[in-house]
Amino acid sequence: MTDLAYVNGQFLPAENAVISINDRGLQFGDSVYEVVKAYGDKPVLMDEHILRLERSAHALNISLNGIIEEIDRIVPEGLQRTGFSQTIIYIQLTRGTQPRNLIFDKTIKPNLIATFRPYGLDLASMRSNGIKVSLYPDIRWAHCDLKTTNLLGNVLMKNKANDEGCFEAILFTEDGRVSEACSSSVFVVKNGVLLTTPSSENILPGVNRKYVIDIVAPQLGIPVREEHTFKDDLFTADEVFLTSTTFLVMPVIEVAGQQIANGKPGPITMSLVEQFEKNIHN
Amino acid sequence: MTDLAYVNGQFLPAENAVISINDRGLQFGDSVYEVVKAYGDKPVLMDEHILRLERSAHALNISLNGIIEEIDRIVPEGLQRTGFSQTIIYIQLTRGTQPRNLIFDKTIKPNLIATFRPYGLDLASMRSNGIKVSLYPDIRWAHCDLKTTNLLGNVLMKNKANDEGCFEAILFTEDGRVSEACSSSVFVVKNGVLLTTPSSENILPGVNRKYVIDIVAPQLGIPVREEHTFKDDLFTADEVFLTSTTFLVMPVIEVAGQQIANGKPGPITMSLVEQFEKNIHN
Repeated sequence: MTDLAYVNGQFLPAENAVISINDRGLQFGDSVYEVVKAYGDKPVLMDEHILRLERSAHALNISLNGIIEEIDRIVPEGLQRTGFSQTIIYIQLTRGTQPRNLIFDKTIKPNLIATFRPYGLDLASMRSNGIKVSLYPDIRWAHCDLKTTNLLGNVLMKNKANDEGCFEAILFTEDGRVSEACSSSVFVVKNGVLLTTPSSENILPGVNRKYVIDIVAPQLGIPVREEHTFKDDLFTADEVFLTSTTFLVMPVIEVAGQQIANGKPGPITMSLVEQFEKNIHN
Repeated sequence: MTDLAYVNGQFLPAENAVISINDRGLQFGDSVYEVVKAYGDKPVLMDEHILRLERSAHALNISLNGIIEEIDRIVPEGLQRTGFSQTIIYIQLTRGTQPRNLIFDKTIKPNLIATFRPYGLDLASMRSNGIKVSLYPDIRWAHCDLKTTNLLGNVLMKNKANDEGCFEAILFTEDGRVSEACSSSVFVVKNGVLLTTPSSENILPGVNRKYVIDIVAPQLGIPVREEHTFKDDLFTADEVFLTSTTFLVMPVIEVAGQQIANGKPGPITMSLVEQFEKNIHN
């Protein structure tokens, strides 16, 4: 089975799926998106992803008329049509199609695009080895709290990290504060406490970040504080880990070429990995 | 004649022109562009636009293999096919098509898109009346010197300005310095001298900005200094004007609801308008 796509009412093979060159997502990054993982026919934390999509669209005045109902309909259908054991669902909602103009028509109709692809990461091996990450200045714009496709900063930094043999890059703002990673949230473990960057316009309100804070850590009795950490806190941390939709919880063993603690996935991180997995498979 | 498009080797009506949903321009804003105005079959400052496109693509490692030759071929052909008296040529070069992944394949082939549309502004009336502009914090990313399609910040601010009855918005950085406008460069006239923001990563190296600095102002004996101006300098300016491909030089008569000087297009601005027009029609 090849990748499946959905565009404005029609399922078709992803390689045949197209959109107008006058789509505003293409011309301006004027669009929002979500990535959802599914096990069999069960998307993980779907309600939370939908809520965030609504929030992003509202903030940008992208019309949602009938869109959520459409997503609710096509996600189960797409999963059924593909039948992958684990699926990455990509949902992109653009403001719509209009001859190029920064000013958008108030009556423009959004374009809904989705793809269904088999999950590709070797999670077991990544988790048991831990990952290496780079550390870069955060060059992105002032509204990283919105999940938009203005992702060129993320693209550049993730590729640079990749070229350096790293899986991700942790980003820091001008004053040295950790913001987040290119496509994941950052947690620092210090004296048995999880520290993570408070929500603000600088970071995405991560669905899995929130699930760790609200559900997984409390289940294990691990205290969490949403407070700023600085670059140097990474190097003196007991453990560092990332959260994201594609890997849930991922231990970091090296930052910018420097080993974290003993250079192995930490015990608190691994207990969170295990508990998170337990929750979503129940 | 309807809008004409060109996509990867083929001319077709813009309304039928499509691109893969896996295009990285659509998914990440991973693309660069130029807008060129043509009078009849003569594009204005084409070499300068091509140079900037090359610069943007190089900075992002977007392959240019054969692309410039392709643009050199299709621009005259597109202008001939449409035959508009004045044309806006839009050229977009995306990194290419690939199943969604922040990491791009090093061998990916770029997609070249272009549109040819009739010019739509009533320039004579805009120039004789002058325009009103809004004044907003610059919320964009750290590489506005690259002409990429990560334009959502520009979109949001231009629409907000439009909703307030303004044609453009001038942007200022955190320390109150004027950077540029959403889709144009800013000049302040003070005691007979043109002041404009120095080139940096915060502003686009405007083709028409440079043409005013290097050619038009010297022709008229008007001194230019590339130095920072601050928000308040706008309100005490003798004149304020913008430069861009779509309107060359445009007098500003009001900023954030406050009248500039006597609220009429200034004499230095209008002499630049006239000289610029003279140059490109000779």
